[in-house]
Amino acid sequence: MKLQEELEEFIRNGHKQFMSHLSIDCVIFGYHDKQLKVLLAKYAHLNGWGFPGGFILKEETLTQAAARILKERTALGNIFLQQFYTFGDNDDRIHSWGSKFFTPEFKQEFGENNWLTQRMVSIGYYALIEFSKAEIKPDILYDEFSWYPVTGLPQLLFDHNEMAEKALSTMRNQLYLQPIGYNLLPEKFTLPEIQVLYETILGKELHRRNFPNKLMSLGILIKLDEKRNIGQHRSPYLYKFDLEKYEQALSKGVALAF
Amino acid sequence: MKLQEELEEFIRNGHKQFMSHLSIDCVIFGYHDKQLKVLLAKYAHLNGWGFPGGFILKEETLTQAAARILKERTALGNIFLQQFYTFGDNDDRIHSWGSKFFTPEFKQEFGENNWLTQRMVSIGYYALIEFSKAEIKPDILYDEFSWYPVTGLPQLLFDHNEMAEKALSTMRNQLYLQPIGYNLLPEKFTLPEIQVLYETILGKELHRRNFPNKLMSLGILIKLDEKRNIGQHRSPYLYKFDLEKYEQALSKGVALAF
Repeated sequence: MKLQEELEEFIRNGHKQFMSHLSIDCVIFGYHDKQLKVLLAKYAHLNGWGFPGGFILKEETLTQAAARILKERTALGNIFLQQFYTFGDNDDRIHSWGSKFFTPEFKQEFGENNWLTQRMVSIGYYALIEFSKAEIKPDILYDEFSWYPVTGLPQLLFDHNEMAEKALSTMRNQLYLQPIGYNLLPEKFTLPEIQVLYETILGKELHRRNFPNKLMSLGILIKLDEKRNIGQHRSPYLYKFDLEKYEQALSKGVALAF
Repeated sequence: MKLQEELEEFIRNGHKQFMSHLSIDCVIFGYHDKQLKVLLAKYAHLNGWGFPGGFILKEETLTQAAARILKERTALGNIFLQQFYTFGDNDDRIHSWGSKFFTPEFKQEFGENNWLTQRMVSIGYYALIEFSKAEIKPDILYDEFSWYPVTGLPQLLFDHNEMAEKALSTMRNQLYLQPIGYNLLPEKFTLPEIQVLYETILGKELHRRNFPNKLMSLGILIKLDEKRNIGQHRSPYLYKFDLEKYEQALSKGVALAF
């Protein structure tokens, strides 16, 4: 196994900087033009796809670690990541992914009990962004990044398929408790456009009349004196977010039932 | 510092059995007769109260560890624990609770870098039970257990006050997504009784008419041909859970908006 110096140093001495047994994985959902996708990374030395992840420095918080990992791996900055679940139940996690993925040569070179081959518990974080805005750059751990539709994920490394499901269901549940849309929609949008956003993320159709009524009842939308012209008899009103009320709803929570 | 042999062995050699840097804490909410309480433990050697917790054996899953810890500490068995958050952001967690709580004598005896004095990330689990059914027994780590009202918690050890808030808000949010009541109410109950249960847990009053209508619309309650006599002109109908539909709602989720 031929490794760059930087990677070799990381394998050999990473345990001095990072906490053992703990990793972080980032599930980044991207919405764009009626599609919901998720960002996958090709793991350079494992020949497979998974979520971008990394380790926690002994002197940083979990939130700092998650933001740093995402930024280092993907160049995505200023993204609000939310912790959603900590993974440590899968049998393979206990009996060590390392022993499955790291070769006898690896162990001979770096030690039978190298910190990377030990049991890892992984803390999952997710975010939802407008995916056309993301700039992504590979690094020493990953060859390549790609956006995949959430409904058609390939077989992923480790327990990352389970991670994808859990992140998606958490994000969907969150829609009932917190508003979304800001940064995902243009500044002015129609009610059908925000309905499509919700429907795309939830993966199901919502009632044509009830949904806009419920959304309006949250008091976070301002109806503008302006229409979009989309056809001879179709010119729906435009709306924008009332940002103050939107922020309040984010911190206090809302209860939407579709 | 005079310690029992069992505890001394645990401090000295625990790191051989348990994963380093990781702990589990259990927040057990108890409902009984219109009150919501939470179970606190008095930490034998730290002279303070917190949630019962423990460590993860190298060969067990997180779920197994949480159940084992709760059972060992409190004799509470067969409780469905739900993971709610992993705590590792508090400055004191990073700069080690250990160094704050373990004395110089401790360090001299057990080593400056004893595994217990290192930074711990704690995975929080919560449960909601009928608290009159719980039997609790202290162990080597805890002197005493006590149920405290959620609204009047004392200053707790570590970051356990933050943990209490997060567990409570997660449980409250969960009420919008999953049914509750089974095992917390008698087999037959009135609509006002289940409303009081929800109100107690949410810590707020719910609408007298809307709430029962919304609850009924979930299809998980069966109206019985039987009434409770509570006054001359007051004899509300009794209800019971349709367990099959209740289980479906638990696994599929519901959306209640109060």
